[in-house]
Amino acid sequence: MLFQSLIERKRDGAALTADEWRTALADHLQDRVPDYQMAALLMSVVWQGLSPEELTALTLAMRDSGSILDWPPSVPPRVDKHSTGGVGDKVSLVLAPLVASCGIAVPMMSGRGLGHTGGTTDKLEAIPGFRTDLSLEEVRAQVERVGVAMFGPSERIAPADRRLYALRDVTGTVPSIPLIAASIMSKKLAEGLNGLVLDVKTGRGGFMQDPERALELARTMVELGVGNGCRTTALVTAMDRPLGRAIGNALEVEEALLALQGRGPEDLTLITRALAVEMLLLAGTEADRSVARRQVSEALSSGRALDKFRELIAAQGGNPGIVDDPGLLPQAAEVELFEAPVKGVVAAVDPLPLGRAVVAMGGGRRQLGDAIDHTVGFVVSARPGAKVLKDEPIASVFARDAAGITLGLAALREAIRIGPAQPLLPLISHRVTISGTETLS
Amino acid sequence: MLFQSLIERKRDGAALTADEWRTALADHLQDRVPDYQMAALLMSVVWQGLSPEELTALTLAMRDSGSILDWPPSVPPRVDKHSTGGVGDKVSLVLAPLVASCGIAVPMMSGRGLGHTGGTTDKLEAIPGFRTDLSLEEVRAQVERVGVAMFGPSERIAPADRRLYALRDVTGTVPSIPLIAASIMSKKLAEGLNGLVLDVKTGRGGFMQDPERALELARTMVELGVGNGCRTTALVTAMDRPLGRAIGNALEVEEALLALQGRGPEDLTLITRALAVEMLLLAGTEADRSVARRQVSEALSSGRALDKFRELIAAQGGNPGIVDDPGLLPQAAEVELFEAPVKGVVAAVDPLPLGRAVVAMGGGRRQLGDAIDHTVGFVVSARPGAKVLKDEPIASVFARDAAGITLGLAALREAIRIGPAQPLLPLISHRVTISGTETLS
Repeated sequence: MLFQSLIERKRDGAALTADEWRTALADHLQDRVPDYQMAALLMSVVWQGLSPEELTALTLAMRDSGSILDWPPSVPPRVDKHSTGGVGDKVSLVLAPLVASCGIAVPMMSGRGLGHTGGTTDKLEAIPGFRTDLSLEEVRAQVERVGVAMFGPSERIAPADRRLYALRDVTGTVPSIPLIAASIMSKKLAEGLNGLVLDVKTGRGGFMQDPERALELARTMVELGVGNGCRTTALVTAMDRPLGRAIGNALEVEEALLALQGRGPEDLTLITRALAVEMLLLAGTEADRSVARRQVSEALSSGRALDKFRELIAAQGGNPGIVDDPGLLPQAAEVELFEAPVKGVVAAVDPLPLGRAVVAMGGGRRQLGDAIDHTVGFVVSARPGAKVLKDEPIASVFARDAAGITLGLAALREAIRIGPAQPLLPLISHRVTISGTETLS
Repeated sequence: MLFQSLIERKRDGAALTADEWRTALADHLQDRVPDYQMAALLMSVVWQGLSPEELTALTLAMRDSGSILDWPPSVPPRVDKHSTGGVGDKVSLVLAPLVASCGIAVPMMSGRGLGHTGGTTDKLEAIPGFRTDLSLEEVRAQVERVGVAMFGPSERIAPADRRLYALRDVTGTVPSIPLIAASIMSKKLAEGLNGLVLDVKTGRGGFMQDPERALELARTMVELGVGNGCRTTALVTAMDRPLGRAIGNALEVEEALLALQGRGPEDLTLITRALAVEMLLLAGTEADRSVARRQVSEALSSGRALDKFRELIAAQGGNPGIVDDPGLLPQAAEVELFEAPVKGVVAAVDPLPLGRAVVAMGGGRRQLGDAIDHTVGFVVSARPGAKVLKDEPIASVFARDAAGITLGLAALREAIRIGPAQPLLPLISHRVTISGTETLS
């Protein structure tokens, strides 16, 4: 196979065969195809897209480039969630123990923070001692024992995707719906799941700012999942404002604890419950949506979800004491209140400057391998639509020094707009299943 | 400058600044930008094109990456020709001495064969002893002394283009009008020319098969030349059949000699004269087209053009004896006639299988650095439109062995179609100048 002719055909809008995709990925992974040819092919894909057959072939080639988790028959149905990422998105921290406490197995693989968005593994590592670098054997053993494991990207899962993603990241070839879908689904399909729920975020703070593209990504991933033996449902949710009040790793853990006790902010609670219900239905242990809803409520109100989180933390080496005393979480050196500059109504809270500020304040990575400060971030108590008085405290900045406070206050001034009310995206706008798309708002 | 953000902006259809193009090329040439990022940028250019300002910036950045020929005031106006390449295109061999014999300086830089098309330097090297690897100092001295030099690509001319072209060649990023135009014009603008004529070929045997794209390339290059101080005119000419009768290096030299003696095939003669007239007008020494035509005729009929070729060959170390005794050119070991399989009219002579067969028979390169056999090729005496009898000899194959003959005969069977007449492209369809496009057919 002459790789160059593959590039030319893709460039001219043709579809490559499954064999061609499989060979292309294998050859690239083994350095028989140079990065410059793969980069040209990737840009051709950004340009021309992929046919459904190509998308499946690429996804399976990535999945099959590494290990696939298999589960003994004794393990209950496995269900996972994937979020496309946002600002203040601590859903996984609540959802994984919540669903596990309903008797479903949750092997949850999550990523690091990316760009202005936070990552679940970074948040978990704010818990003193918590290890996310579990081996696949540890994951399997812990899911069998505890019912849930939360772990970072494994080098053994879909290494071809890993290699490709690193190249996409530096060649402007990230924003392609088929490439995003293949990257996400190749890893999820390697987990040996029965079901998968996708939280596809749209709005300024997500990677899919345009709702139409978010829906297209949701549909693409649902088809890819179902077509390859994994029941998959997607919810399209709002990321035109931060999710919940807390932004920043340790602060979000604290808010997740509140949510597990039924005292979390409404938006976080609604989205988490909705995703949990989908996961119960996808697991196949419960077919009735209203029964599933009651199970979720009961897991929260009974404290079983919170107990499961305690168990999970202990299993992964963390200090479960933080559940009852969040003061054991690392605390920021400096805290400062932010006051409303004028009287009025909060028109918008832009997640983008806040997410970027967390990175700038040391709470995210500019480069792979950067150490991060888990304490920094924001708590924004004023939600869009809230009436505020001049000089009323509406947010707090948590930083490691005065410079961080200055950065944080500037970001809040940019993010919080007080003025005529603006339309917000519906919190949960669509449910996408293989049968079609339901509008929920 | 973050190179990745340049890729992203180009991918999204924005224009980069002149400074950005200059830095990008310099950084790539010095290995500060990896090939994989440049490949992604190049594919984005194939996709999104370049604005006129970007095209100029890219072209000048390439030109300025190497040496620029400068000429003492004693040297007459310099004019060169560039052809986009075709099958049987030996025009340069006739044109350079012809125009030089009219008192114009012709520093003619030509390429090697590319794909199925032949290259002028390969043809010249069929002449025993002929050197095309002149240094820029040798070129300058010879043009001052003889009025003409014909030389191959110099590593000192536009090295950034050289580097980029090698990458384009293996990443499917060759067929982009702005990238082709920039590559050609950066080298021509480095020659210190007063004028340039472009022979843009269209039809199955050219690189621009579609006449509309050929016209677009012609317009792009004319604007680029004139905008940067080089009077430039383009003729769009037919490459839906081979040019002349001979295809293959030594065979084409022989046909060029006939043309210099006024006995060449009509199409070759018409195109060569038309290009020569444009070059005289571009040089600015003659403003009247009919006077220029007479000068060209007189240079041929007087034998001055042929004398200049003899002088040129001698100056570059070749055996000028071939002019009077073409038998001194290398001769093929095997020759075989090809006969018309049926009675009828020649509907088409497809240049593509013939050009490819010359490469397959050893007369072209599959890889850079391959040695080539100058003797192999074809003489196709039956032109489209000619009536032929069954078993009438209408072509000859020249090969080094029986296998070559077999290949050649198969190519002739594929190329020559006898049947209902098909429309041919006009030999010279358009003249493109900065003032506009004239239809000539």
